[in-house]
Order: sequence, then structure tokens, then C-alpha cells
Amino acid sequence: MLVIGELINSSRKAIAQAIEQRDKDYLQNLALRQADAGADYIDVNAAAASNEIESMIWLVDLIQEVTNKPLCIDSPSPAALEAGLARCNKSAMINSISAEKDRWERVLPLIQKYKPKVVALCMDDSGMPETAEQRIRVADVLVGGLVAAGVSEDDIYLDPLVKPLGVNHEFGMEILLSTYALTHKYPRVHVVSGLSNVSYGMPERRLLNRAYMVMGIAMGMDAFILDPLDQTIMSTLAASRALAGQDEYCMDYIAGVRSGKVKA
Amino acid sequence: MLVIGELINSSRKAIAQAIEQRDKDYLQNLALRQADAGADYIDVNAAAASNEIESMIWLVDLIQEVTNKPLCIDSPSPAALEAGLARCNKSAMINSISAEKDRWERVLPLIQKYKPKVVALCMDDSGMPETAEQRIRVADVLVGGLVAAGVSEDDIYLDPLVKPLGVNHEFGMEILLSTYALTHKYPRVHVVSGLSNVSYGMPERRLLNRAYMVMGIAMGMDAFILDPLDQTIMSTLAASRALAGQDEYCMDYIAGVRSGKVKA
Repeated sequence: MLVIGELINSSRKAIAQAIEQRDKDYLQNLALRQADAGADYIDVNAAAASNEIESMIWLVDLIQEVTNKPLCIDSPSPAALEAGLARCNKSAMINSISAEKDRWERVLPLIQKYKPKVVALCMDDSGMPETAEQRIRVADVLVGGLVAAGVSEDDIYLDPLVKPLGVNHEFGMEILLSTYALTHKYPRVHVVSGLSNVSYGMPERRLLNRAYMVMGIAMGMDAFILDPLDQTIMSTLAASRALAGQDEYCMDYIAGVRSGKVKA
Repeated sequence: MLVIGELINSSRKAIAQAIEQRDKDYLQNLALRQADAGADYIDVNAAAASNEIESMIWLVDLIQEVTNKPLCIDSPSPAALEAGLARCNKSAMINSISAEKDRWERVLPLIQKYKPKVVALCMDDSGMPETAEQRIRVADVLVGGLVAAGVSEDDIYLDPLVKPLGVNHEFGMEILLSTYALTHKYPRVHVVSGLSNVSYGMPERRLLNRAYMVMGIAMGMDAFILDPLDQTIMSTLAASRALAGQDEYCMDYIAGVRSGKVKA
């Protein structure tokens, strides 16, 4: 199970502001707290900053000053991805490539050069998928293409792109069935998801986000982009790993409870 | 989805005491509160009372005075099951039959006479099952035997008998895979489970119980024996139904939030 701490993302107002004001302490503190709370990777997104490339480099440097956790370099811009990757002092992850022709052609060379773990979005130029079948068709293209380009299956994190339940109440099961199918078709490939899209437009979103994560784990998702400072979600993650048989003798769960991190 | 309110169970000290003291108000209040919180059936168990049969009759009468919800007559004793069933003013449920020879032979005639919904425990005279295969083998015997005796598949609630994770960390996945297999083999038969056995002996049990329920719903469980007064579990149930595509337009979820019953 892999947790990508999502908080240093310029789409969040406070982060965009901290980047503009070069508030290093605030951002370093956020990196440290996420690492301490159990993030395996720290997401770094400067896409909404006025100078994305310069901001990305500044962020990568300041985070690496305070934590040894690897980074997830997150941008729609191949140039910003490359700027971030080039600055990382250890193997990173990128978010993301997709099967869209332009994105594929511009991001693939970076993957071959820097050999990061790769979030691969299950979408192509025909747009966002709706059904499990559509996702699996695009996943086939992504896994086939990445492996042909020399990427290890174990470095691929397919994102099936969950859509809001509020748009169609079947979307939850579509994503869960997609996950089940993908993890059985590609046992060495990972499945990653963010938690909040599923609940977009709905009330009491955290309830839906949590249930989505728990069901996702049962179906084979093994990486999440989430807020590791949310103790309830991290506690629920620990309980879910135990239930899914991924925590031998439930030792991590029990240790988490003892340390006070895992709490009902 | 069917919720069986578990609180009126004499294995709980306060209930055993209320039964001994014939504290009608307390027990009626508990029945009403469970019904109001969303229980579809009210469990009635007097097995630990000094006179089980007399207590069962008294309980059935007092609950039926205050709510129209049907009852789940719960006892290891066939005589107590019959006393309860005979007193019910509408179609009830019983908990339980099993494939143990003696229990099967004594409970089946009650099922044929009173036609209740039936909780069928996946165990036989060789004891509690451990693996998914063992559960499915016993389920085959139960479903085959009940259907041959004239019971509709839709009235059968298989209980795969979850065992504590603390004993073996594989037990969570065994029960989830059993459920998946059973709901696919018998699409009209239901799968029911209590929530607390899975976490026996572990700390912060409510976390594990909740995650177990959510994963169970993803795998096809559609009935739970639980405490409906636990707002977190009921809220999580509502979110899980929405995610599993069982709540058209998420209308129940949204209505639950509006009424204040569903809360993160």
C-alpha cells in the first residue's frame, strides 16, 4: 500500500499563496507533517503558480531539505515534470502520463530518462472513460506501451479516473469493477486513485470518500492520493489493510493504535 | 439492504437485567429507538434469561405493542424459536438454522410451519468453517436442503460466520471471498453478517467493524446484524449503499444527510 500525501498542491488556495509568497516554513512544515503521518510520497504540484517551472524547482528543493521521502512530481506540463524530475535527489513518481497522443509523446521520453514510478491515467483522446470496459481498453494501451518502452509493470500505477456519484449512481461500481478487472489482468501493475472526485457535489463528502477507499482496497487498489493528516482516513486505511490480509498478524494496525495514530 | 437491530439481546448485561426485572419501558424504548434509527428487523434474544420461553413471549408482545417492524427471533433453542414465532403478528425472521444435524432436524419444521426468513449459519457438525471452500460446501447443503423443503431462495440469509482477524490475518479475505462466491453462485440468496466477531481481541474494534461492513457490501453482503443507534455505522452504511450503486440518484443518502441521520 502506498500513500501519496496530496497537500502540497497549488490548486489549494493556501498552497498557491504560500508558493507566491515563498513561505518556505509553511510548506516545509506541511511536507514534514505528511511524512510523519505516514505518507510514502509527497505530491508536489505548482501548476497554478505564476511561474510553474521555477516554483516546482523551489518546492522540490525545500521539501528535500526536510524529508527523505520521495516526491510525486505532479503537473499537466511536461516541462514542469522534467524540471521537477531533474531536481529530485532520488527516484520519484510522476503524475501523470495518459494515452492522449500529445501527452504520451511528450511524457514518455521523461519516463525513459528518469525512470520514475508512473501514474497512468486511463484516458485517451476520446476523453474520460465511463464504463469498466472503456477503462480496461485504455489500460491495455497504457500498460502495453509503457512495458514496450522499458517500464517495469511494478512501476506503473493505473488511475481508473473515478467520476462523481452525483452524476450517475452507477459510477462507484464501474470504478470498483474496473479495479477488480485490472488487478486480475495485470497482477504486478498497481491501481491508484484520489479519493475526492467520487463525492463531488454530494453532502458529507468524507463519508463517501472513506467508503470508496475501503471498497477500493477490497477490490485491489493499492495506492491512494489523499490527505495523510486526516486521522480518520489513515485509521480507516490501517483497518482496511488488516481486513484485506495485507498486515501480517495485524502488527501495523496494533502498532498504529499503540502509538495513537490509529483511532476509531 | 436489510438492517437487523441487535440491541435486545440477553447476552448484553443490561438487557438480561431488564428482562429479569420485567422493565418493559426500557425495552420498548430500545425497540422504538432502533426502529426509528433505521432497523428493518428487531432482534429478540432471551437465551440468557432464567426462563427463556416465557421471556421470549413477553418480549415479542411488548415490542409488537410499540412498533410495526418485524422481529428476528433469535435463539439456540428450537423451543424458544417456536414460542417466539407463534407469538409474532406478522412474518418474522429466525436466527438461526445450520447444517448441524440435530439443529437442522429440529428447526426445519418450524420454518415450514411459520415461513419466516431464515438466517442459515454456514457450519455443520464438523464445526466452524475456516476457508472459503468450506463455507461454500456447507452453503450448498443449506441452500439445497432449504429449497427442497419449500423455502424460497429470497428468504435465505446465509451467514458465512466471520472469525476474528486477531486469530489469523487471512480471515478477513476468506470471508469476503466467500461472500463474493456465494452471491455469484446464488444471486437470489442473501448474505448476512454480524459486525463484531471480526475484531474480537483487537483494539479500536469499531474501525475494523466498519471497514468489514463496507468491504462486505462491495462483495455482496446485503444484511447486517448491528447496532442501529451507532450513527457512524449507519452513516457508513448509507454511503456504502450509494457507492455500491444500490441507491438510485443517491436519494436515500441525500435524504439521510438532510434529516441529520447521515453524518461524517
